[in-house]
Amino acid sequence: MEPIGLAVVGAGYWGPNLVRTAQATPALRLEWLCDLDEERARAVLGPYTTVRATSSFQQVLDDPDVAAVAVATPAATHFDLVRAALEAGKHVLVEKPLTPSADESAKLVDLAERSGLVLMCDHTYCYTPAVRKIRELIHGGEIGDVQFVDSVRINLGLVQPDVDVLWDLAPHDLSILDHVLPEDVRVEAVAARGSDPIGAGRLCVAHLSVQLSTGVMAHVHVNWLSPTKIRTTVIGGSRRTIVWDDLNPVQRLAVYDRGVDRAPAGTLGPDERHAALISYRVGDILVPALPEREALREVMAELAAAISEGRPAMTDGGAGLRVVALLEAATRSAEEGGALVPVQDVTKGRT
Amino acid sequence: MEPIGLAVVGAGYWGPNLVRTAQATPALRLEWLCDLDEERARAVLGPYTTVRATSSFQQVLDDPDVAAVAVATPAATHFDLVRAALEAGKHVLVEKPLTPSADESAKLVDLAERSGLVLMCDHTYCYTPAVRKIRELIHGGEIGDVQFVDSVRINLGLVQPDVDVLWDLAPHDLSILDHVLPEDVRVEAVAARGSDPIGAGRLCVAHLSVQLSTGVMAHVHVNWLSPTKIRTTVIGGSRRTIVWDDLNPVQRLAVYDRGVDRAPAGTLGPDERHAALISYRVGDILVPALPEREALREVMAELAAAISEGRPAMTDGGAGLRVVALLEAATRSAEEGGALVPVQDVTKGRT
Amino acid sequence: MEPIGLAVVGAGYWGPNLVRTAQATPALRLEWLCDLDEERARAVLGPYTTVRATSSFQQVLDDPDVAAVAVATPAATHFDLVRAALEAGKHVLVEKPLTPSADESAKLVDLAERSGLVLMCDHTYCYTPAVRKIRELIHGGEIGDVQFVDSVRINLGLVQPDVDVLWDLAPHDLSILDHVLPEDVRVEAVAARGSDPIGAGRLCVAHLSVQLSTGVMAHVHVNWLSPTKIRTTVIGGSRRTIVWDDLNPVQRLAVYDRGVDRAPAGTLGPDERHAALISYRVGDILVPALPEREALREVMAELAAAISEGRPAMTDGGAGLRVVALLEAATRSAEEGGALVPVQDVTKGRT
Amino acid sequence: MEPIGLAVVGAGYWGPNLVRTAQATPALRLEWLCDLDEERARAVLGPYTTVRATSSFQQVLDDPDVAAVAVATPAATHFDLVRAALEAGKHVLVEKPLTPSADESAKLVDLAERSGLVLMCDHTYCYTPAVRKIRELIHGGEIGDVQFVDSVRINLGLVQPDVDVLWDLAPHDLSILDHVLPEDVRVEAVAARGSDPIGAGRLCVAHLSVQLSTGVMAHVHVNWLSPTKIRTTVIGGSRRTIVWDDLNPVQRLAVYDRGVDRAPAGTLGPDERHAALISYRVGDILVPALPEREALREVMAELAAAISEGRPAMTDGGAGLRVVALLEAATRSAEEGGALVPVQDVTKGRT
Repeated sequence: MEPIGLAVVGAGYWGPNLVRTAQATPALRLEWLCDLDEERARAVLGPYTTVRATSSFQQVLDDPDVAAVAVATPAATHFDLVRAALEAGKHVLVEKPLTPSADESAKLVDLAERSGLVLMCDHTYCYTPAVRKIRELIHGGEIGDVQFVDSVRINLGLVQPDVDVLWDLAPHDLSILDHVLPEDVRVEAVAARGSDPIGAGRLCVAHLSVQLSTGVMAHVHVNWLSPTKIRTTVIGGSRRTIVWDDLNPVQRLAVYDRGVDRAPAGTLGPDERHAALISYRVGDILVPALPEREALREVMAELAAAISEGRPAMTDGGAGLRVVALLEAATRSAEEGGALVPVQDVTKGRT
Repeated sequence: MEPIGLAVVGAGYWGPNLVRTAQATPALRLEWLCDLDEERARAVLGPYTTVRATSSFQQVLDDPDVAAVAVATPAATHFDLVRAALEAGKHVLVEKPLTPSADESAKLVDLAERSGLVLMCDHTYCYTPAVRKIRELIHGGEIGDVQFVDSVRINLGLVQPDVDVLWDLAPHDLSILDHVLPEDVRVEAVAARGSDPIGAGRLCVAHLSVQLSTGVMAHVHVNWLSPTKIRTTVIGGSRRTIVWDDLNPVQRLAVYDRGVDRAPAGTLGPDERHAALISYRVGDILVPALPEREALREVMAELAAAISEGRPAMTDGGAGLRVVALLEAATRSAEEGGALVPVQDVTKGRT
Repeated sequence: MEPIGLAVVGAGYWGPNLVRTAQATPALRLEWLCDLDEERARAVLGPYTTVRATSSFQQVLDDPDVAAVAVATPAATHFDLVRAALEAGKHVLVEKPLTPSADESAKLVDLAERSGLVLMCDHTYCYTPAVRKIRELIHGGEIGDVQFVDSVRINLGLVQPDVDVLWDLAPHDLSILDHVLPEDVRVEAVAARGSDPIGAGRLCVAHLSVQLSTGVMAHVHVNWLSPTKIRTTVIGGSRRTIVWDDLNPVQRLAVYDRGVDRAPAGTLGPDERHAALISYRVGDILVPALPEREALREVMAELAAAISEGRPAMTDGGAGLRVVALLEAATRSAEEGGALVPVQDVTKGRT
Repeated sequence: MEPIGLAVVGAGYWGPNLVRTAQATPALRLEWLCDLDEERARAVLGPYTTVRATSSFQQVLDDPDVAAVAVATPAATHFDLVRAALEAGKHVLVEKPLTPSADESAKLVDLAERSGLVLMCDHTYCYTPAVRKIRELIHGGEIGDVQFVDSVRINLGLVQPDVDVLWDLAPHDLSILDHVLPEDVRVEAVAARGSDPIGAGRLCVAHLSVQLSTGVMAHVHVNWLSPTKIRTTVIGGSRRTIVWDDLNPVQRLAVYDRGVDRAPAGTLGPDERHAALISYRVGDILVPALPEREALREVMAELAAAISEGRPAMTDGGAGLRVVALLEAATRSAEEGGALVPVQDVTKGRT
């Protein structure tokens, strides 16, 4: 089968990764790297390439060999670029967040649907072996009911000029949550608090409490100011608990057969009842073997597969929209001093 | 000097530790272990002891050889026991929380003051070499201004019959915070959210956001349901950041010369301004050598010293009261869905 | 049943631990703590005890209430003390090494056998839940054939005045090895190299290669000069590999379903043969739940049980003798520049 | 300045890394990738390249645009390929080991010297920020006298078809040792023991004791069969000790102000003397900040710089020869059952 012609737009922080992995994907054919600064694009491609650099997005859209566009520009430009690409009949892969507003994101989702084009969000983490395994464990019932989620993503991060720490880091946690939770679990509301202790003009530390339809609270802590790097997500279940430590290559994922159980209440007095009702499991820990695969290559392969098979990508525009709706509500909550803000139900089409 | 006669009250979870360390403190003379269940007291003392067991608290209070009482009973009984001890002219060491209400705690603080007796709270962590060093680093200015605090205390913990996870675990973090923060920093308000995913009838997971008078947010995460144990506190400062990992004996404390700096604003445009204003330090990490000392022995030594020297203990009733006032506000916040609740100013006498 | 009267001899580094755990063992009755320095003995017992201190070993031996003696004095004194105790009809628990020479150790073993008395070596590690589990895994066949053993025991240790690092630290590794290996595996020879880089007058760093009857090499690295503490033993098997990290309380033991397999040789050429013959397993890791038990309490319980039941203790004199024979050969090897030295077969009676 | 024309020979395991980093080095111009299997070379270059593939080494040598050749073929082919390249007037970068024999290595070193060409060994680790810092710390005197070295390099590694674990893994440790030790310290002898517990036909586990001219023992443990990966080197000094854990990105290097000191002997009796002579330091740990640089890019930059400046490379043929001489002696020792084998003095020209 003929490879699918692809153009990468944006030669900044993430674009070079798209360029590298696109070149390693047999089902794709990288045609262009486009950046307002053509020199930067050329530098990213290096002196040995046959791929063309351009500063003209229009040139990319006009090229009939280009069937798909991968957008890695600042979030504020996503809406215009993605819309133009879709209107030019191109499939689109776009970095997170899909756009800075749920309304605009919804418009892009609609446009892609009406045009029969793939609109895929680069929720890279959903393509890691660890997250695939987590989803499998939850959906397969091995965890039981999800009882709590705690996600920490902190490090000494670049204070971004255009987005705060919520929009910079939390999309990772929220897209993972969206991906692994059982299909009947919905996000209902969110409360967020944050601070800007260095006077950067935007939140540098934030805590989100995400209220799920099951009554469960998922907590996310994102922080640009931590001197140590932590990437840990704990998903507590009624049967087992998953601990995902993404910085521990030896055992990224551990499944603990440990927890607290509550027996059905009987007719005992309060004291005896407590002892009788609560019991503890301290069982084995299982560290499942995970394949070594680069997530971004899987993203590229999924983009190509979705286009070839004429189906939505695993992390489609709807997933991007759900994450944006949540972030938007979180921002409002932070502005309102941490109040619980309902999250718009945009889950139709969630898979 | 004659050792100070001490009675320990309560032979449950913590009492045996008081018994053991009191016996290892030359300035104290352990006279009694008192418990409603005298057999339990006897079992704790073991078959080789010369210390007496009793089920009568009155007998302890009546004994003129007893100058001080250490109370390690359930929190609900603290007010009555401590008041009776103070009224009988005994100095008191009491487990945390001082009492379940700030009003009652304030009464005990007043009573002790009026009686000229030592009322000391067993905020054990404040006596660890790590916390002493943290206080020294902050008070000595090596950290600069405190910019954020993040404390995590989670493990597979006993679901307590009488208190929730806030009152069980957060006193540790809050008493440490009270101890290490500069003297002019006050707690102004707190927001708390929690959940009870196992239907235990009380919060098993909770997140606290403590608002300080400097505008800084201190966050505390306590959790009884985590299969992994974490005891980590990060205190970010404008000059350096402290990472305290209490479960890492090799380097419990690390001082990172890393962070994000903001230069004074100039007259540049927004883009250049961002790059010009924010800079990053990635300097060395220093792991200070800490002495190996058991904190509870230091508690015992401090109790004896405060009594001998007729001065308040390092963690006195006022410290206990401040922690209780914060917990009370946190509980109200959790009941009100996470609203920010002001914390009563009870800081007079804070050292 | 009447508790067994016990005297502890030696109030130095380890004696206090014997005193504490003996007092916590219902089947024992601690009668004496004996030390040449009676004041030291008194200080160890503390001011609240009913246990008697003495500087007279003879007084202990003469006491008909004393049925057993636990010897925790310097190794050079073991032979005389243990012999005297056995001759006085007392059962004996003795610290490692049994004696500084295999000949003397053998004499004690014989004497105990002839007298029908328990002679038990305090190979404490063999009573830890981790080592019990390792033995179970190996003896149960889950590991397959043992292919290599690698044991590292290094830290900033006290340079001992009377023994070198071989005799101070390696007894732990060698007694564990003796305990967990299948019964038909024998130690055949040992080579040792060491160094004394600080001019302490004795080996401070040493490496042992223990040759087993199966052709397998077990390597032990002991070091008093390492600023970091490591206590790790890897036991590689044809089916699985055990990694025991004694300083990691979260997962002291991990069983890796990983390894290299060799298929039976066929008739291929050298290159193809290599690829065909070698295959790799990268399976799950299992971290078995281990009970939390203090090993030294198990030692005390085993001492009491062996005496009551009139049977050899799990780590009997024979185990002590085998370890001493190995150490003696290792010392000779180190003196001879690392030559392979046969180890005397003293395995009769090995369980 | 015109970039230096380079050809990479060998498109197997390591060649692709040379191809990638050469392309990222402005001072080099990658002309060819040469492999007996031209298809493999083409696959490594990928579909977007302007670099040429060839299966003819002669074509590479004949190309006047090629000034240097980087050899990444099996060790057995190094001698012929490097000699041919040097004879054709090309500078050479060659993978470790330089050749399988010290005699052949010496011939290549001589040939390069006589021809005035750069012969550089790709001792990649010597170009890491960690090893540069270690060298700086030792040469700057901060460590004091080196007292012991302990290096562990174990993992589940590929059992190589052509070399054993000694020749596969130990070159890393030995080239690092060669690089960081003070200039007046020489390797005098080596003892090695190994085993092949899986019947692979070559050593899969090995322990080396390297005897230095100062009397110090450097120990190296290499192992292909370990399910866990360890890359740790400890260098104990009279003033401080370095711990390098290459798998810990947070603190790859830690400098411990801990150790055992011996005071000059006085006139005390043996017991007091011991206590008086030995003292312990338990000071701070310093984790120096290290730049984030890819070592192989530094190798490429050094190759280009050495050629431009007409000087030997930092890890020149002499370094490669010293490592090979040590490996050869180690192999002989292993064959002779672990005897101490002198290492030929090939240190002339050591920097």
